[in-house]
Amino acid sequence: MDPIAYVNGSFVPLSEAKVSVLDRGFLFADGIYEVAAVLDGKLVDSASHLARLERSVGEIGLALPETTARIEELQKELVARNQLDNGMVYLQVTRGADKSRDFPFPKGVTPTLVMFVTAKDIVNAPSAKAGIGVITVPDIRWERRDIKSVALLAQVLAKQAAAAAGAGEAWMIEDGKITEGGSSTAFILTQDDVIVTRPNSNAILPGCTRKAVVALAAERQLRVEERAFTVAEALGAKEAFITSASAFVQPVITIDGKPVGNGKVGPMATRLREIYVDFARATAV
Amino acid sequence: MDPIAYVNGSFVPLSEAKVSVLDRGFLFADGIYEVAAVLDGKLVDSASHLARLERSVGEIGLALPETTARIEELQKELVARNQLDNGMVYLQVTRGADKSRDFPFPKGVTPTLVMFVTAKDIVNAPSAKAGIGVITVPDIRWERRDIKSVALLAQVLAKQAAAAAGAGEAWMIEDGKITEGGSSTAFILTQDDVIVTRPNSNAILPGCTRKAVVALAAERQLRVEERAFTVAEALGAKEAFITSASAFVQPVITIDGKPVGNGKVGPMATRLREIYVDFARATAV
Repeated sequence: MDPIAYVNGSFVPLSEAKVSVLDRGFLFADGIYEVAAVLDGKLVDSASHLARLERSVGEIGLALPETTARIEELQKELVARNQLDNGMVYLQVTRGADKSRDFPFPKGVTPTLVMFVTAKDIVNAPSAKAGIGVITVPDIRWERRDIKSVALLAQVLAKQAAAAAGAGEAWMIEDGKITEGGSSTAFILTQDDVIVTRPNSNAILPGCTRKAVVALAAERQLRVEERAFTVAEALGAKEAFITSASAFVQPVITIDGKPVGNGKVGPMATRLREIYVDFARATAV
Repeated sequence: MDPIAYVNGSFVPLSEAKVSVLDRGFLFADGIYEVAAVLDGKLVDSASHLARLERSVGEIGLALPETTARIEELQKELVARNQLDNGMVYLQVTRGADKSRDFPFPKGVTPTLVMFVTAKDIVNAPSAKAGIGVITVPDIRWERRDIKSVALLAQVLAKQAAAAAGAGEAWMIEDGKITEGGSSTAFILTQDDVIVTRPNSNAILPGCTRKAVVALAAERQLRVEERAFTVAEALGAKEAFITSASAFVQPVITIDGKPVGNGKVGPMATRLREIYVDFARATAV
């Protein structure tokens, strides 16, 4: 079955879902995106994703073509039309199609809004039980990584290097510290049971799943510290894991082929994953 | 009249020229572009642009869907179909449309090739006679600026800031030195008549027009020095100017509102512009 996509006010078969070659998303990476998980047909952590969407578009002076309330309605309708039980809704807004192909913001152009869904059984993903390996690469990205823009070429190259090495993610290194994964947040659990993740700044994307996991851990009196950490610290840690909207919490068992801790999936990553899945189900809309 | 564009093997009206929402150019900025000037219906400095195209796609592991010889034929056909006398041919190649929306390179996907033209009387552009103002902004781009990718959001924001300030270009500053303009190369002429421009490296795009102008100046026994320079040096210079494929050589008369030299269009920029236009006409194909 051809899935249904949403493009600028219309629900269309994905195979016919197109944008102009003049779209600034295509020509300039002048756009913002979000990916929200779907569990049992409901949107996970939706308010958090929509708040980040509003922040990102604001940072690049782009007005959403619909209210976030309306966008959530459209996401729900897209999920329903696709009869999607589990997976993700991908959403992208760009500064629209302008015939001048000139860098400054065009006037009188309506932003483009595109959505489509992908089926994925996130809860039962084998990699969550088996753990993944990560490789490290230099972080060569721009200085506004807090903006969730579609200018993702550096992440494409990082994650391609990971895939070529048989790894599940690339951790990016800047000034000797891990910033984050190509499409996830990096965490460790230290030998004295402190959950450590880098604080939000322009150096990383403020992860929605990161935010929820940190809050859920704190609610359970787990110790959380927000600071940057090195690869050496991660290798010497009890556990390492990543968080993302499309993978939830996922254990990391090797870094550049070397084992983290005992090289096995640890209890904290497993516990936080269960806590997050419970939260996701309980709050999905 | 609706211009004609080229999309993946077909010449179509620009209003109908579209790509899939799954195109990796749209989703990941996973693509490369080139802009070649057209003078009297002929392509300017075409071999240089095609060589840079091949280099850029190679740097991101992307195979061109056509040979560069065939691409040049297609560009010529597009110019002819549009009866374009003066302007630019825009060309973009991306890693194609893949339904997985996954970061690593997809397998078995044909790259996308898009071209369209824009009419512009580059030779007689009023700004070439009047000169332009530039503003300075921090260079927040990624570390592989030598790759001419469509991940241009930083340049969009820089050039929007310039436009909002009534300036014609933004000069980007890193470590106290000018790297380049948002879509052009920066030059000065020192008080002792040395033409100075930054050497090629990962910090800047290797400009085709830059390369030609440097070679043409050297042929005429003009002194050229390749080194980075500061805003203070530029303000104290005799002249400043920029080069780009779509503007050739253009004098810069103010930086952040302060005059360069005597604040007037200088003879060297004017001379180099004439030399470049002669070269462009003589070598266009």
